Amino acid sequence: MDIIDLIIKKRDKKELTDKEIKYFIDGVVKQKFKDYQISAMLMAMFINSLTLNETASLTMAMAQSGQILDFSEIEGIKVDKHSTGGVADTTTLITAPLCAACGLSVIKMSGRGLGHTGGTIDKLDSIPNFNSCLTQKEACELVRKNKIVLMQATKNLALADKILYSLRDVTGTVESIPLIASSIMSKKIASGADAIVLDVKCGNGAFMKDINSAKELAETMINIGENISKNVSAIITDMNEPLGMNIGNSIEVIEAIEILKGNKGGKLKEVSLELGTRMLLLGKICKSISEGKKMLEENIKNKKGLEKLRTLIKYQGGNESVIDNYSLFPQAKSKLIFTSLKSGYIYSMNTYKIGRAALETGAGRHTKEDIIELSAGIKMKCKIGDYVSEGDILAEIYSSSYEKCIKAKNILLHSIEISKNKPELKNTIINF
Amino acid sequence: MDIIDLIIKKRDKKELTDKEIKYFIDGVVKQKFKDYQISAMLMAMFINSLTLNETASLTMAMAQSGQILDFSEIEGIKVDKHSTGGVADTTTLITAPLCAACGLSVIKMSGRGLGHTGGTIDKLDSIPNFNSCLTQKEACELVRKNKIVLMQATKNLALADKILYSLRDVTGTVESIPLIASSIMSKKIASGADAIVLDVKCGNGAFMKDINSAKELAETMINIGENISKNVSAIITDMNEPLGMNIGNSIEVIEAIEILKGNKGGKLKEVSLELGTRMLLLGKICKSISEGKKMLEENIKNKKGLEKLRTLIKYQGGNESVIDNYSLFPQAKSKLIFTSLKSGYIYSMNTYKIGRAALETGAGRHTKEDIIELSAGIKMKCKIGDYVSEGDILAEIYSSSYEKCIKAKNILLHSIEISKNKPELKNTIINF
Repeated sequence: MDIIDLIIKKRDKKELTDKEIKYFIDGVVKQKFKDYQISAMLMAMFINSLTLNETASLTMAMAQSGQILDFSEIEGIKVDKHSTGGVADTTTLITAPLCAACGLSVIKMSGRGLGHTGGTIDKLDSIPNFNSCLTQKEACELVRKNKIVLMQATKNLALADKILYSLRDVTGTVESIPLIASSIMSKKIASGADAIVLDVKCGNGAFMKDINSAKELAETMINIGENISKNVSAIITDMNEPLGMNIGNSIEVIEAIEILKGNKGGKLKEVSLELGTRMLLLGKICKSISEGKKMLEENIKNKKGLEKLRTLIKYQGGNESVIDNYSLFPQAKSKLIFTSLKSGYIYSMNTYKIGRAALETGAGRHTKEDIIELSAGIKMKCKIGDYVSEGDILAEIYSSSYEKCIKAKNILLHSIEISKNKPELKNTIINF
Repeated sequence: MDIIDLIIKKRDKKELTDKEIKYFIDGVVKQKFKDYQISAMLMAMFINSLTLNETASLTMAMAQSGQILDFSEIEGIKVDKHSTGGVADTTTLITAPLCAACGLSVIKMSGRGLGHTGGTIDKLDSIPNFNSCLTQKEACELVRKNKIVLMQATKNLALADKILYSLRDVTGTVESIPLIASSIMSKKIASGADAIVLDVKCGNGAFMKDINSAKELAETMINIGENISKNVSAIITDMNEPLGMNIGNSIEVIEAIEILKGNKGGKLKEVSLELGTRMLLLGKICKSISEGKKMLEENIKNKKGLEKLRTLIKYQGGNESVIDNYSLFPQAKSKLIFTSLKSGYIYSMNTYKIGRAALETGAGRHTKEDIIELSAGIKMKCKIGDYVSEGDILAEIYSSSYEKCIKAKNILLHSIEISKNKPELKNTIINF
């Protein structure tokens, strides 16, 4: 086999065999090919797309290209979840403890974020002394003891995916559905999941802007699952406004705690429960959607979900008192109130820009080396469809400096459309 | 402007502007972009093709990316020629002196070859002491004195093309018509040509295997010419058998001399005169095809073409006595006769394989570092349509060693099809 022949084959729209894809991924990891050859292949894959067989082969080859975690010693079905990413998307911190409280073993691996806010691991960093850096053995012990662990993905998980992603990022080959799908699925498979629940975000704050591409991505991942005999369930959720009200790190953890306390509803809760229900279903903890949803609601009411989060924090070295005393979280020095310049209905939001505003507060990273301000971010005080009067508070901006707050406010100014017309409200969870 | 945005634009089948292509080529030459970004762009250009405007912009940007030769001090229209390459294609050594003898100023830049035989410059190396390495000033002087110069292309002529070609070679992006067309045309424009005659080879010994792709390439180059206001004339010629009878370096020079002496006819002469006629037409030396052909025929008869080659060799330091005494050329040590195993008509030839056989004799280079055996090669003794009897000589093989001759013979054995049926003879020059 020769890499140039394989590039030419894909270039000419022919299907690569399982063996050929394995040869490609193996060469990528072993540095047998040049970066310029890998990027030529990625561009050919991008433009000519990949068949389902190719996508499944690529997924498995990438999953097997690094460490594969083995949680088989833990009883029951291990169900993982993944979100394609949006603004104020804190579902993991709600869904995972609730599912664990229902009896599901939850080993959730997450990453740090490069974007408007941090990833789940960055958010957890805002809990004093919380340790997300665990070995496979430590994770197994904690799950046996407490049913749940939230940890960093190990460094060489799906190694080939890391290499390919860093090249895709600088060669204009990111937005390919088969490449995105295989990237997500390879990491989930390598992290030992038996079944996977996917939350594909769709809208102006998501990677997938339109429903068709969201559907295609969801279906591609479900098809990969079928091809490799893993149960995969996917929902598409709206990302035309921030999912939760808080955008940041510590303030997102606080919002999750508030939902687990039963103090808060809204879209974030709705999506968290939907994802949780599907996790319970795949994990055979419940038999129907209605039963699953009831169990989750029950575990909010009786606070078992909240207590699961408390023991999780405690077992992972964190200060669990944050649950009762939010002042133990890092606190922002500056706060700026953003008020409405006119009266009317919140008609639409540019969710991407709102995310960028959060990034300016220090809640996210511009480059990998940036240090996140864990207390920074934006608390939204309005949702699409709300009626606001001139002078009403639309958002509160938190940061280490007044200048950063101003920067964020200037972006927010152009991110929220207020109209005399009442907008049509859309479903948060989109059936497909 | 950002390279990733440009890659994405081309990836998404949008037309790049002249400015954007210039920015790309400028960055390639100045090493502002990474090889993996350039190869991603090349793959996007390959799969999505280039519009005529893009191809013309790319041609001009590449032409201007290195040294641009200026022969404006020489009077008259400077006409260049280019062949897309085939087996036993020695037209330059016949056409160029004949056109010069007719009064056309001929500055012909050529390269060394990586293939079955050397390029024109390698062939000229077989003339003892011939110097093809001239400066622009030296070339001007020789053209003024003798109307003709055959020289090596300067090193940084169309620099971007060199960089792009070396990447295309290892990333499966060679066979793109717009990329091939702009590569050829950029070099011709940078070498100061006012008008260009193109010989697009078509057949099993050529880069273009079928008539449609040959036509497309020819038309693309004519269109580039129109776009940049240069007169371009193209012919398509058959390459389903070697053009001349001799495949090698010194033996190809000898065949050219024989044609200039009026001792030989055949396809090589036919194509050489067709190309010459078009050069005279573009150079305004003649007014019609018939007049041009007559002038060239006359200059064979009166030996003025031959004398032009003689003075050319002399002025460029070579031993012009080779013209009368072929034993002054390097001589091969081994010779092997290849005879027919059966009787019948020469029905077809695998011209690519015949070229490979010549390469095995030492007439060409496997890698850039290989040293060519200038005396090695194959003298074909049959053409398609000839009737041969068992034991007739089909070819003579020349090399420095008997082993190499055997290797070449083993390839030749599978390169010539003999049949009881007489093949239909095709035209050498294909109208389009």
